[in-house]
Amino acid sequence: MTIFSKIVKGEIPCYKVAEDDRFFAFLDINPLRPGHTLVIPKIEDDYIFHLDDDTLAGLTLFAKRVALAQQKAIPCLRIGVAVLGLEVPHTHMHLVPMTKEGDLNFANPKLHLPDDQMKSIAEKIAENFQ
Amino acid sequence: MTIFSKIVKGEIPCYKVAEDDRFFAFLDINPLRPGHTLVIPKIEDDYIFHLDDDTLAGLTLFAKRVALAQQKAIPCLRIGVAVLGLEVPHTHMHLVPMTKEGDLNFANPKLHLPDDQMKSIAEKIAENFQ
Repeated sequence: MTIFSKIVKGEIPCYKVAEDDRFFAFLDINPLRPGHTLVIPKIEDDYIFHLDDDTLAGLTLFAKRVALAQQKAIPCLRIGVAVLGLEVPHTHMHLVPMTKEGDLNFANPKLHLPDDQMKSIAEKIAENFQ
Repeated sequence: MTIFSKIVKGEIPCYKVAEDDRFFAFLDINPLRPGHTLVIPKIEDDYIFHLDDDTLAGLTLFAKRVALAQQKAIPCLRIGVAVLGLEVPHTHMHLVPMTKEGDLNFANPKLHLPDDQMKSIAEKIAENFQ
């Protein structure tokens, strides 16, 4: 079972943002920017373009709802998207609140935000999720 | 009219990879890696998460077909995805053939490949597009 499946099952704690029957969103524990969120399908597949069309389209539309919530909760210009997929073998889409082009750079130093701030960010996004 | 709409209309030349009635794919002229492709909707909208659900899902499924073709045409581990969207005001998804995590970094120096190599890469991807 992947680390992300353990998060979905609640075996590993996370700052949860949104969930439905097929998809799950939670804060990246080492964010590039405050509010950096990971969106995953509950099924384990390690490559986004191996997802069947229905799951891929569903993932993208779920990510859109998360991104619209992020924009209401986090001061930013827009939400950047990245799928790299060479680390954790479970498809995940990064949604990163951006104020400039360079914010979506995985070589940037990661932030380490205190637990109460992470909780409050996750709650704010969750409240705006529709 | 955006520069990308001019490309779609053929008013600005490009290395075209794929097209259908709603979407268009062509090589990034300053690629991060050989085969780096941009996928766009033909409608002009400057933010991916403002696209209506049908267009967004269609764009993603079109990108999947392009990515599967890129993987057949270009030696790589997988195709990385990025949408930054603070430069050209016309939604575009970057599809970048990756061999390592650091390949999807827009701060990396861009490649300048000769015209005949760009042509041959575009043709190879186009041949594999299904």
